[in-house]
Amino acid sequence: MNNFINPRYFIDVNSLVKEAIEFKSQGSNNSEIGRGKTMVLLFFNASLRTRISTQIAAEQLGMNVLFLDMSSSWNIETEEGTIMNFDTAEHIKDAAAVLSMYADIIGVRAFAKLEDKALDYSDHLINALHKYCTVPIINLESSIRHPLQSLADMMTIKEHSGSTKPKVVLSWAPHPKALPHAVANSFLEWAQLCNYKVVVTHPEGYELEADFMEGHILEPDQEKAIENADFIYVKNWSATSNYGKVLNQDEKWMMNKAKLQKANNGHFMHCMPVRRNVVATDEVIDSPDSLMHNQAKNRLHAAKYIIKTILENG
Amino acid sequence: MNNFINPRYFIDVNSLVKEAIEFKSQGSNNSEIGRGKTMVLLFFNASLRTRISTQIAAEQLGMNVLFLDMSSSWNIETEEGTIMNFDTAEHIKDAAAVLSMYADIIGVRAFAKLEDKALDYSDHLINALHKYCTVPIINLESSIRHPLQSLADMMTIKEHSGSTKPKVVLSWAPHPKALPHAVANSFLEWAQLCNYKVVVTHPEGYELEADFMEGHILEPDQEKAIENADFIYVKNWSATSNYGKVLNQDEKWMMNKAKLQKANNGHFMHCMPVRRNVVATDEVIDSPDSLMHNQAKNRLHAAKYIIKTILENG
Amino acid sequence: MNNFINPRYFIDVNSLVKEAIEFKSQGSNNSEIGRGKTMVLLFFNASLRTRISTQIAAEQLGMNVLFLDMSSSWNIETEEGTIMNFDTAEHIKDAAAVLSMYADIIGVRAFAKLEDKALDYSDHLINALHKYCTVPIINLESSIRHPLQSLADMMTIKEHSGSTKPKVVLSWAPHPKALPHAVANSFLEWAQLCNYKVVVTHPEGYELEADFMEGHILEPDQEKAIENADFIYVKNWSATSNYGKVLNQDEKWMMNKAKLQKANNGHFMHCMPVRRNVVATDEVIDSPDSLMHNQAKNRLHAAKYIIKTILENG
Repeated sequence: MNNFINPRYFIDVNSLVKEAIEFKSQGSNNSEIGRGKTMVLLFFNASLRTRISTQIAAEQLGMNVLFLDMSSSWNIETEEGTIMNFDTAEHIKDAAAVLSMYADIIGVRAFAKLEDKALDYSDHLINALHKYCTVPIINLESSIRHPLQSLADMMTIKEHSGSTKPKVVLSWAPHPKALPHAVANSFLEWAQLCNYKVVVTHPEGYELEADFMEGHILEPDQEKAIENADFIYVKNWSATSNYGKVLNQDEKWMMNKAKLQKANNGHFMHCMPVRRNVVATDEVIDSPDSLMHNQAKNRLHAAKYIIKTILENG
Repeated sequence: MNNFINPRYFIDVNSLVKEAIEFKSQGSNNSEIGRGKTMVLLFFNASLRTRISTQIAAEQLGMNVLFLDMSSSWNIETEEGTIMNFDTAEHIKDAAAVLSMYADIIGVRAFAKLEDKALDYSDHLINALHKYCTVPIINLESSIRHPLQSLADMMTIKEHSGSTKPKVVLSWAPHPKALPHAVANSFLEWAQLCNYKVVVTHPEGYELEADFMEGHILEPDQEKAIENADFIYVKNWSATSNYGKVLNQDEKWMMNKAKLQKANNGHFMHCMPVRRNVVATDEVIDSPDSLMHNQAKNRLHAAKYIIKTILENG
Repeated sequence: MNNFINPRYFIDVNSLVKEAIEFKSQGSNNSEIGRGKTMVLLFFNASLRTRISTQIAAEQLGMNVLFLDMSSSWNIETEEGTIMNFDTAEHIKDAAAVLSMYADIIGVRAFAKLEDKALDYSDHLINALHKYCTVPIINLESSIRHPLQSLADMMTIKEHSGSTKPKVVLSWAPHPKALPHAVANSFLEWAQLCNYKVVVTHPEGYELEADFMEGHILEPDQEKAIENADFIYVKNWSATSNYGKVLNQDEKWMMNKAKLQKANNGHFMHCMPVRRNVVATDEVIDSPDSLMHNQAKNRLHAAKYIIKTILENG
């Protein structure tokens, strides 16, 4: 593995999930593998979990970590051949060349802007960095994917799954703000590569892209969708018909205990941060069937396993 | 010791001060005790001394340090059971759970807002973190306490005290901005636990809370208060009668050489940053009797001793 | 060497450049020299290359690095004897004393404000820090000098120079924003100390200070200036006649392939970030004769050599 951007570049996602779980169970005694090497974190968007779990993972492997808050400071040019006489101060190919001289791995967080769907779905910033950088890139949430979250999610499902064919559901939830599609997209993509057929449920106007829906089933009736589910991933994403807007805040889509009981008590999952009593009730989030904290804990192990794997190949 | 928030939780503050001085004199050869462990610093307010002394202390003990500037990025919910449909993006109990998974010690700096006295004096943010976190918390200045400053102050007094019963004074000083009460409160609280009876002097409207004044004496006449003092801690705090306001900027409260000479040349103390020629004159600050730099130097030793003690108990 | 502010403080710049190149060629096995020591980076202005290269250099030498973004947080008083009753919260002599207690080396980046020429050319902030700090200071670009850039530039010229007397040119370039003079000044200063007589070319109103022009030649005609040049350093700086303004954006000053061919194909040099097709065309920047990336790579080696040298003397 020489980058971690899009799981379709990897050979075998199923084995990756299994190996990450094994790595986690072995405990961590790899503090020499990254000694003297540097991970640069470019964060165009703020973060708590991703920042901390990635930085600690790299440091536990012996790396130095250099965090750069790019939210205000960096106007980067991505067009080839432009006359750079306006806002942009540096071309991405020059920044990438320099970063590649100094860093051993680059982690990037750059959300969708939710203004131009075609631009967002081209995932242009992370793809441009990948094109121009000569060192490995780790996706820490791009416009349309959040693969470290999905690896942690798949680890969590495998760890709590009695059968090899659990029923997995992705249930849209209300939220006051317009959120990117990355977590939902990546969840579906990784689930498909792990051979889970996901039942997806959401209101009209929130249809996810065919690429990510491949191998999965749409069931618009939430109650039917979650029936006998083993795992219910609850997550908001912004509208797709009217791209990036909040069309629906209907609280009947919120997950609550009554629904779960009727559906035979599947495990509740969420990537955090979670808006309590909007996305799901306190009762659901704090119940013993909630795997939310397990997912968060697996973020550290997922990051550590991926960084270690990249360092070994480097 | 499994947290460092409020000295009333500790058994014996006097011994703590003595041990910190011994630890300082031994020099530092503890670079393995924190190896592979992480301290997360949550700073809701900016800082020079506290940030640097704490981070260096932790790193000299072998820890990795992850600094998070929370001044703009984090809208945290502290109420239980709220419908989080407005500004707050994450509940403190969820953030605390995640921080506790990733970090080994959490340092928090969160000033009083100086708008609502009851809210500030409940010290709600650090207490909520303490309630929900399962790893040790270090107070790096909360709404009403600054215990690492006070430990450094008590070390400085003990190091320069000929007698076991020195005369210690806390003298209010003018300042153009409204400052929190944390340093003054903590100084009085620690002094009382170290058996110093402090003579407190300030203008009307600046009365400190009875809890912190316990065991001390109010003397409204500054000249009488500082007479024959061994240590004169000079510090501004904002008004208490008209909470959080600047009622008085009368320069006659500024500390100067003439007053000190008349009072028999006690040691000048200040926690820094100091507004020169407002709080005290250049002459006082730069005199050989000033212990201001000794206090600052002790900040590093105090932080290192506390982190080491917490790591040993962990 | 106990500071790295102004090359006129060093004994022999020529030997320094040679030793830095030797150090680079030996590869890096100095990870113990900085163990347990701390470098504090005070950045009053943002940076990509300088931040990353300096931090990684220090960490590869075993140091801990503490980065402080000073762009908004620090109002520092530099006047002696002032009554600090307004904006400034701390006097530089107090900040410097505290930084000197905690840090082993201090790196400072503080650009010219381009409002008051006399103030900028007094280089007051870095000089005040040097005056009051008791630990070594490294200049990471001050108002009028950028010596780590110049060391990397001189290393690059020496590495690519067949003769000991190459023809070196400094050619002004257009730019939409008003830029400091530090890179141009330092380039001329270091070139003179390395015995290169530089041909300087720029439009009217952009004359550099006599101190920095010492030993060099002005040739207002760009075509004549670059004739038979071995190295052509292309760089914008803001006006000097009308201090800090943009008087000229004439694209005829942009470097392009036709000019270089006519001038016998000298090496193109630039300190980055570069505005493509404004300062120089894509063709020039991406040509095999461009040394821009070599300069950037040498930033890391230059920083590492200087930090190592300071640590050895400390």
